[in-house]
Amino acid sequence: MSFRIGIDLGGTNIKAGIVNENDQILLEKSIPTKAHRPADEVIHDMAELAEALIREAGGRRSQFLGTGIGSPGTVDAKTGVVVYSNNFGWEKVPLGERMSDALRMLVRVSNDANCAALGEVKAGAARKYANCVLITLGTGVGSGIVIGGHIFEGAHAGGAELGHTSLVADGEACTCGRRGCLEAYVSATALIRDTHRAAVANPDSLLWRFCGGDLENINGRTAFDAAAKGDPCAQTVVERYIRFLGEGIVNAVNLFRPDIVLLGGGICKQGEVLTKPLNAYVRQHCFAGDKGFLPEIGIAELENSAGMIGAAALITTDTE
Amino acid sequence: MSFRIGIDLGGTNIKAGIVNENDQILLEKSIPTKAHRPADEVIHDMAELAEALIREAGGRRSQFLGTGIGSPGTVDAKTGVVVYSNNFGWEKVPLGERMSDALRMLVRVSNDANCAALGEVKAGAARKYANCVLITLGTGVGSGIVIGGHIFEGAHAGGAELGHTSLVADGEACTCGRRGCLEAYVSATALIRDTHRAAVANPDSLLWRFCGGDLENINGRTAFDAAAKGDPCAQTVVERYIRFLGEGIVNAVNLFRPDIVLLGGGICKQGEVLTKPLNAYVRQHCFAGDKGFLPEIGIAELENSAGMIGAAALITTDTE
Repeated sequence: MSFRIGIDLGGTNIKAGIVNENDQILLEKSIPTKAHRPADEVIHDMAELAEALIREAGGRRSQFLGTGIGSPGTVDAKTGVVVYSNNFGWEKVPLGERMSDALRMLVRVSNDANCAALGEVKAGAARKYANCVLITLGTGVGSGIVIGGHIFEGAHAGGAELGHTSLVADGEACTCGRRGCLEAYVSATALIRDTHRAAVANPDSLLWRFCGGDLENINGRTAFDAAAKGDPCAQTVVERYIRFLGEGIVNAVNLFRPDIVLLGGGICKQGEVLTKPLNAYVRQHCFAGDKGFLPEIGIAELENSAGMIGAAALITTDTE
Repeated sequence: MSFRIGIDLGGTNIKAGIVNENDQILLEKSIPTKAHRPADEVIHDMAELAEALIREAGGRRSQFLGTGIGSPGTVDAKTGVVVYSNNFGWEKVPLGERMSDALRMLVRVSNDANCAALGEVKAGAARKYANCVLITLGTGVGSGIVIGGHIFEGAHAGGAELGHTSLVADGEACTCGRRGCLEAYVSATALIRDTHRAAVANPDSLLWRFCGGDLENINGRTAFDAAAKGDPCAQTVVERYIRFLGEGIVNAVNLFRPDIVLLGGGICKQGEVLTKPLNAYVRQHCFAGDKGFLPEIGIAELENSAGMIGAAALITTDTE
């Protein structure tokens, strides 16, 4: 029996799990990240967390093949360096090397969304497939691309960022400094912005009831909830959101032609409200139409464990 | 000494060349395609052309490792089937198998733009690199993506189509049936459309002089020529064209992070008029800015031989 450690380095918590050969988590632990500390302190705590897991599992150290880490930001998977993480204020942090020194084992690093996609391929909604694009709809828009069972990173660090390809050149401002990126239209942040605007423009809309009369209470569910009750204004917000998401998925299909496209993040909880129209949209708009290969659009399954399982899978998976 | 045959199957001509181990064309021949015949007739002539090359070269048949073909349309490189070619009216044509039967040698097929990109990596403007994105600016917009020295096809047929990813959701109509694709903004066809519109809206523009007073004479050079003479209306057309092209290149970089992005096709003859502002644009707009890897933007070198050289390279290159 051999094991791997998978670490999901998040903005709020560091989650670490021991993963077996069948991509199941046997034991997991979590600590607060306290992200705005020096990188060395975060890395020190992360290594301690992994050591605690190994001790608690009571296994022999030699049974651990290595540790994989899913990190936010721009990661150079070849070197294990976090080139840049806006959230953490990290620049050129040699995360892989530091962790390898601390744990005295093989360590590999990739972007967190990449790890989540690999996790879904190993043990989640894409487990029947080797080719998957995962788009996470959260505060931002992350993307992970798995081709032939391996993470597709692009040739150099900073590739595979579907969230930062354009939907509307010169459109809405994006967190990356550009305008009109997918993230600026289909993140939860973008949906909240558009729901807010629609409520302001439509004083009679049910949106006001669903936020209790206070626009500050609008969240990623508000428009979906009001639309389900038949509110035309909310329905327009939801239809527009789904159309933009459809455009982003068509772009991903025309480039990567995966077996399946999965949606993750908070908004994916809408389930069939998203996947039903999106499956129709993709069938209608992809290059070469029904003559080309058309993937299924589905919902990610593993939620919070995808990152750990995928990170652990970096150890047995060639990520180049 | 061993040789490969590279075939560039074009809408007007079929070009075939004998390529040596140093990716040089030793001998080449060309015949008209007469595309609107049954596929079997085109394939028969293509095989005859290859046989004629082999005879003329006077080499032993055993010295030929195989034949590579760059075909228009959606190609399944794994099976050698042309899934769909709009120009040829082809659907599910087993081009690789038919040619292999006729020539009694290994035959591989990929999309023509993919082959051109591989040709530039083997012997052209990207010969120092293993990772290249080629965007061809012609009647349509083709793209070829080479990662690690191999063509990136996506997981299934119909991937790697940068020309059919969005720049402006719901924007200008595209030949693929969708709206707002890169092709609908940066093809020569799109540039001619925009030059035409600008001339109609600006009766005093120099554009009228450069088309001899007849808008039907507008071509892919008209706006560049009038802009070079200081015409503000033409300059607006050119600046807008370059900005859209910049957006498309930033998208390609945020996904593939190649060593170099090359421009091919008729419009690339503008040279530094394009690459100078585009290099600046990309430096300013890519994800993670100057903290990420930033590729050079250059001009393809091989022109009409890129397709043959790249097609021949399919034989020694794993295309999956």
